[in-house]
Parts: sequence; structure tokens; C-alpha cells
Amino acid sequence: MTMNIGFIGPGIMGGPMALNLMKGGHKLWGYARRPEAMKKLVDAGATACASAAEVAKNADVIFLIVSDTPDVESVIFGENGIAKGARSGSVVVDMSTISPTATKVFAERLAKQGVEMLDAPVSGGEGGAISGTLSIMVGGKAKVFEQVKPLFECMGKNIVRVGENGAGQVAKACNQIVVAVTIEAVSEALTFAQRNGADAAKVREALMGGFAGSKVMEVHGKRMLDNDFKPGFKVGLHQKDMRIVMETAHQLGVALPAAALVTQNLNALMGTGDSELDSAAVVKVVKRMSGMGDT
Amino acid sequence: MTMNIGFIGPGIMGGPMALNLMKGGHKLWGYARRPEAMKKLVDAGATACASAAEVAKNADVIFLIVSDTPDVESVIFGENGIAKGARSGSVVVDMSTISPTATKVFAERLAKQGVEMLDAPVSGGEGGAISGTLSIMVGGKAKVFEQVKPLFECMGKNIVRVGENGAGQVAKACNQIVVAVTIEAVSEALTFAQRNGADAAKVREALMGGFAGSKVMEVHGKRMLDNDFKPGFKVGLHQKDMRIVMETAHQLGVALPAAALVTQNLNALMGTGDSELDSAAVVKVVKRMSGMGDT
Repeated sequence: MTMNIGFIGPGIMGGPMALNLMKGGHKLWGYARRPEAMKKLVDAGATACASAAEVAKNADVIFLIVSDTPDVESVIFGENGIAKGARSGSVVVDMSTISPTATKVFAERLAKQGVEMLDAPVSGGEGGAISGTLSIMVGGKAKVFEQVKPLFECMGKNIVRVGENGAGQVAKACNQIVVAVTIEAVSEALTFAQRNGADAAKVREALMGGFAGSKVMEVHGKRMLDNDFKPGFKVGLHQKDMRIVMETAHQLGVALPAAALVTQNLNALMGTGDSELDSAAVVKVVKRMSGMGDT
Repeated sequence: MTMNIGFIGPGIMGGPMALNLMKGGHKLWGYARRPEAMKKLVDAGATACASAAEVAKNADVIFLIVSDTPDVESVIFGENGIAKGARSGSVVVDMSTISPTATKVFAERLAKQGVEMLDAPVSGGEGGAISGTLSIMVGGKAKVFEQVKPLFECMGKNIVRVGENGAGQVAKACNQIVVAVTIEAVSEALTFAQRNGADAAKVREALMGGFAGSKVMEVHGKRMLDNDFKPGFKVGLHQKDMRIVMETAHQLGVALPAAALVTQNLNALMGTGDSELDSAAVVKVVKRMSGMGDT
């Protein structure tokens, strides 16, 4: 069934995600802060709008994927924002990675004008966005999730409704905690191996099949050994996501000591101008601490 | 080719390992501090000896698997120890998990009397010991490794020579660092999910396929959700292994901040009488910190 879809924020992730929605046979109205970002979509048949409100006027389901919590707030509730144009009964699907607690507030505000909301952050990076194999973690009403699911299936593969509004953002935060702390785990182990004069590559090989095995050991561990930190997922973005995690932990009064520690290592990388590196570069901080070089 | 094998320390791990060596068609001389621990092996055709020295007199390759660094030192170099009986040209294979630096010293001492040594700690637990599917991380000369390899293949599957003497222990230490810190990662993520009111089981499900996926997420994450801490690998043993890691880090001057943090959480579990639980119980400490109960 062809649907009228809105898409706001066709950037590195959003661009290919929107294209995959169009490949699914849907009509798309889009808006980008930088108009040139709409070019590819318009070439593929999308309609460029002058504002998020105009997108919302034309669409039954409005996707957005932008950088941070204040960006989402401004796209939805700002001047010429989605809320100004959205019809009652339409659905706003926020695929950004932002604060779980703010997400709940946004959903409540939209509900007051009869607009539904799902939070649906993704993981899988640019590659997953292009190939339509993203993991999508969804929070919101089950009924609304079922309604939007065919559209999620244009963009992703592992699509799980985790709970009510905000739960998708909680799952994404958990994802970022686990990835960050596991990167620290692998960083410390390989640094320990190197300092002991062992062959760190062989150590990784020996560990891969057992309980120490992980996607991070496989992918990020390889990057550490090759000293090749082409992203992947950038330090600057991981640091931003961990800021959201630690702010939420602060609000809720929950101690996350290892997550806090890795956040500091990401901060350290920002201070050495390494924000564009893959976040596997945490190993650099672990090595620098003990006076070891970058190789 | 039938070989004359020695085996010292037929405990929970060593017992089934020795049986698997015998199933490989080898003759076995064994010694246990507690003589009753030899019963199963004697029933299967092994010869019980009165000391480690007597074992060594009869064997070309002498395996040992005991608790800690001082135990290994005493079994090899103590009164009636292996060194008292071992012939020049024989090989001592230490499958205990002990200090990498002490291991190098032990190998040097044995070399002086013409006895070779391999360090070959394992992972995979009692289940892996019984089924003969242990991971074995080996340090020592390549030539000696090739000689002993057919015997390792009676006990394990993923058998990797990581480097020279001590390198096997380094790899095992790295394994324990990664497992411990990844347990902390999963503990913090699931605690964060619960504190946010999300369904932690669904969060785990959403995370499994992506970059947050790991053996620890699969196995230990499940234990945390089920609040079922039947080992598995016990807190008391993981704490002991992390003590070795932190002592080695202390000797080498290398900072392992996240490993240190999880070591403290294992210490905390020892203080609450939880040494017999699986080390996934680290999640209890993470929850207790923030005043959350055990469920």
C-alpha cells in the first residue's frame, strides 16, 4: 500500500534511509536545513518542502533523524515545526538518538493534539542505512508500531518494539553503553598483551571463539591491531551518545561506573582532535595513559 | 602413538581432562593431593602415584592443573615435586591459570635441568573439560608445542600457540579482562534499562544481533535477566584471576582502569558471601550501588 511519507533530515544516515522508503513504493515529502541535501531525493521523485510543517501537512507518517535532543525539539515544536502542520491521526517517528526522558515528554505533547509518536533509533551505521539492514529499536504503542512496521522494513532488518514511548531510546542508550565498555575491555586486554611482549593479534585470535568473543572484538579489535581508525562510528558521535546516557543516569540516580570511565576516554579523544576517528580509538587513550605509543 | 603421560591435579577441570587423554589411548600416571580424587582415573586404568616426583619419573609429558601460582611452584619445585623426578627431555605442561611473569621464571628454572615447559591455560569451564572442547592458549617453544599438540587435541578444540613461555598466561589474563569488563558492560546496560522502566529482556533481544552482541550478552545477560547465578564460572575464581591480572599490571606499570573497577565489584561479591555464584552476579553489585534489589 502506497503511503504518504514525510522525511526530515536526509543526511549521511537519513539520505539512504529515505531512498529505501521510496524504493518501497511510497510518496515522499522531505525537508533539509541545507536544501542541497534534498537533491538526491528530489532526483528520485521526492517533493522538497520549505519547512517541517509543510512536510507534516502532506504526510501520514513523518520520519525525522537529526543530531541531538534540542534539534528534535526544534524540528517538532519550533517555528514551522512538525506540530504546526501535523494532522490528528498522523504519526511522528523520531529515528534520532536522543534523551529517553525528553522523548517521553515530546510524545505526551504530541498526543495532546492527537498525533502519535514512536521513538525508533537505529544502529548499523551508514552501511546499514544504505543496504536497508539497520537494527531499529522502537518505543511507543503496539498498535502504532504495527502500522509503521512495513515502513521500518524498508530500512532495517532487526526491528524490535522494546516498550512504550522512550523505550527505543533506552535500548539505543544500552547499545551505546555496551559497545563503549566492550571497546574499553578489548582496549585494555590488547594493551596488557602488548605490554607483556605477547603478540596481540594472536591473543585476539585465541580469544575470538570463547566467552571473550564479541562483535567488538572482531571489528574494533581488528581496527586497534591495524591501527586503522577510519570510521565506522565516530568518536564525536559516540561521545554525544554517552553524554545522553550519563545525563539520563544523572536524572534517574543510577550509577554506571564503567560507562562513566569510557565517557572520559572519549572526552580525552575529543581533546586530542580525534573526534573524526572510529571510537575504537579509545585504545589510544588506554595506551597513552601508560606511556605507550600509537602502534 | 601411545605416550606415557603424567597428570597432577585431577579436580573438577583436571579430572575430565585426564580422562579424555586416556580415551586418546595414552598411559597415565596421576597424583592428587586428596587421594580420593584419583579414584575415577584409577578405575579407568591410570596408575596412582605417591608424589608429583613419582609421576614425573614415569612420564614423557607431565600435565598439571592446580589453583594458583604458589601451588604450581610447589608442585613443580617443592619437596617431591616434578623437578625432583623429571627426566631431561621431558615436558611440563601447566594448564593452571597463574601469573605470566612467574611462569617465565618457572620455565627458565626447568630449562636448567633440560626440562621443557609449556603454559597452557584453558577456557570453556567444566562443560568444555568433559566434552573435550576447551580453548587452550599456549606459550612456549614452537617445537615443543608441535610435540604436545596431539595431546592438547584430546582435551580441546581452539588450540592456539600465542608466543613464548608466559604468552599463554597473558592470553588467559586477557580473556579474563575481556569477560569481566564485558560482564560489567552488560550489567550496567540492563540496570540502566530497568531503572528506565524498560523491559530489559526486550532490550537484550534488540541488542543481540548488532555491535553490542557478544557471548557474554548471550550467556551472562540471560543469567542476569533470569536472576539465576548457578555457575558457570565462579566469582571466587574470577576474582583470583583478576588478582593475577592486577598484580601483573602492577609489576609492568600498565593502567587497566575498567579491569580494576570490575575487580572491585568481584571483591564486593566476596564480601557478601557470593563467591560460589557465577561471575554474572557482578550485576548484583551494580544494582545494589543504586539501591536496586536483586530482581
